[in-house]
Amino acid sequence: MELSSWFGKEAIIGYLGPHGTYSEEVAFRLYNKEQVSFKTYSSIDVAIKAVESGEVSQGIVPVENSLEGSVNVTLDILAHEVNLYIRKEVIWPVRHNLLVKEHWDDVKIIVSHPQALAQCRHNLRRLYPDAELRAMNSTADAATLVASGIENYAAVGSQSAGALYNLQTIAGDIQDSSTNCTRFIVLGDSPIDTHSLSDPCKTSVVCKMNGERPGSLCEILQEFSTRNVNLTRIESRPARTGMGNYIFFFDMDGSIENNSVRSAVEAVKEKSLWFKSFGSYPICTL
Amino acid sequence: MELSSWFGKEAIIGYLGPHGTYSEEVAFRLYNKEQVSFKTYSSIDVAIKAVESGEVSQGIVPVENSLEGSVNVTLDILAHEVNLYIRKEVIWPVRHNLLVKEHWDDVKIIVSHPQALAQCRHNLRRLYPDAELRAMNSTADAATLVASGIENYAAVGSQSAGALYNLQTIAGDIQDSSTNCTRFIVLGDSPIDTHSLSDPCKTSVVCKMNGERPGSLCEILQEFSTRNVNLTRIESRPARTGMGNYIFFFDMDGSIENNSVRSAVEAVKEKSLWFKSFGSYPICTL
Repeated sequence: MELSSWFGKEAIIGYLGPHGTYSEEVAFRLYNKEQVSFKTYSSIDVAIKAVESGEVSQGIVPVENSLEGSVNVTLDILAHEVNLYIRKEVIWPVRHNLLVKEHWDDVKIIVSHPQALAQCRHNLRRLYPDAELRAMNSTADAATLVASGIENYAAVGSQSAGALYNLQTIAGDIQDSSTNCTRFIVLGDSPIDTHSLSDPCKTSVVCKMNGERPGSLCEILQEFSTRNVNLTRIESRPARTGMGNYIFFFDMDGSIENNSVRSAVEAVKEKSLWFKSFGSYPICTL
Repeated sequence: MELSSWFGKEAIIGYLGPHGTYSEEVAFRLYNKEQVSFKTYSSIDVAIKAVESGEVSQGIVPVENSLEGSVNVTLDILAHEVNLYIRKEVIWPVRHNLLVKEHWDDVKIIVSHPQALAQCRHNLRRLYPDAELRAMNSTADAATLVASGIENYAAVGSQSAGALYNLQTIAGDIQDSSTNCTRFIVLGDSPIDTHSLSDPCKTSVVCKMNGERPGSLCEILQEFSTRNVNLTRIESRPARTGMGNYIFFFDMDGSIENNSVRSAVEAVKEKSLWFKSFGSYPICTL
């Protein structure tokens, strides 16, 4: 489907703003600025709901980081609050930088998104053992605050945020692990047709099992393993019905067009108290 | 063991501060103020490491919320950075309140710990659809900021934080779910002897499987299910060795003194590339 002719309207791509976020870096790499327009949102939940309401054609949100794990708000809203499909997966290498306005000899407070701070925890403690780490809504918000000239502040953010807000980089690549990647997904209101795709695909579902019976997760996993369907990820989240009740997200290699995948998914659906599919989608490496 | 004679020193209990946090509410309920002294820490990681270094005898940290799921920093530090044991589990009902200094007709910015904001997301959007939600390090920090008299701000926090900082409650019990609980654990540098305990116990371990082999998680789960050991929780976290590599936390009913539990844990250890036990501990309901 041509995005530029999405329902006869101009395609609008939504993502977590403001300008200078990692989501924006991904959006600009995935889409041609001359063919689509972009809209930023102040939080992930609002960005996802803008796809559901039709305010944007597609939305780009982070779903997992290789150090910090799941982005819980993304999983929870996809499970409980909207009916959307994953149309693409993008794995994005994260390069964090420590950004200041002018002085770097007296950093007392380091601001950023909590996941960015967590991903640099060791290096920040080494560089500035006495600095306080303070949470903000986004890495770009943190850069904006530091750019305002507030004294003794530094921000953790992307190189593009540093450039956008005219900040100096005290230290580059300060993420604690060199394998730090974030997995983004592109969401839409219909599943993609993977039939004609040559790229490798994945399929994602979420379900709730009968938690009263010991071994029910084990039985579900057997549906995958007996068919040699490779699970790339299993993630539990609260079912929101009380402590100890969970839903499980499964990501697997292969498209639903594949017989083994389709048969395993159908068997899991059959055994679940509640089930939802996010469709099959290509994996994009940038 | 008498806490008050901990290694001949006065027992010190560490927890996430400042005063007015939910961790403090739990600490004050668990320990007699006349027998121990308390020490607050500005972040969960520092509180846990204070137990490892011996700066405090025991530490109380949140590990899971029934709506928001795992407290990732707690799991990650327990797995990767310290060698500590769980000595007790406490399930604490969370009651969030919306707190203001004076005026409640013009709330534009609502501050709190990101998990507290997430737990009230629906009610906050209903009460103040246009308000911006802004992350802070703790619910108590948020209450302190609002108490400073900053205009158009409200905080989400406990009733005791409201009382401590002389704030008014606009709305009580604003958590989105009435079953909202947080699970806290008490950490120490040695495992508890559950032999003589009459309380129900749990046992917790973490391990890394051979992720290259499909079905390896399934095989581990079978070690529990064939012995009728009930898993109360399975949680995956990044192994920190790259996207797609995970470690798995298992909580199970029963103490390691129980033959089935011990045998299952030994079998899991045998099958794991890496394994760590957090011991067995009583479940405490307050």
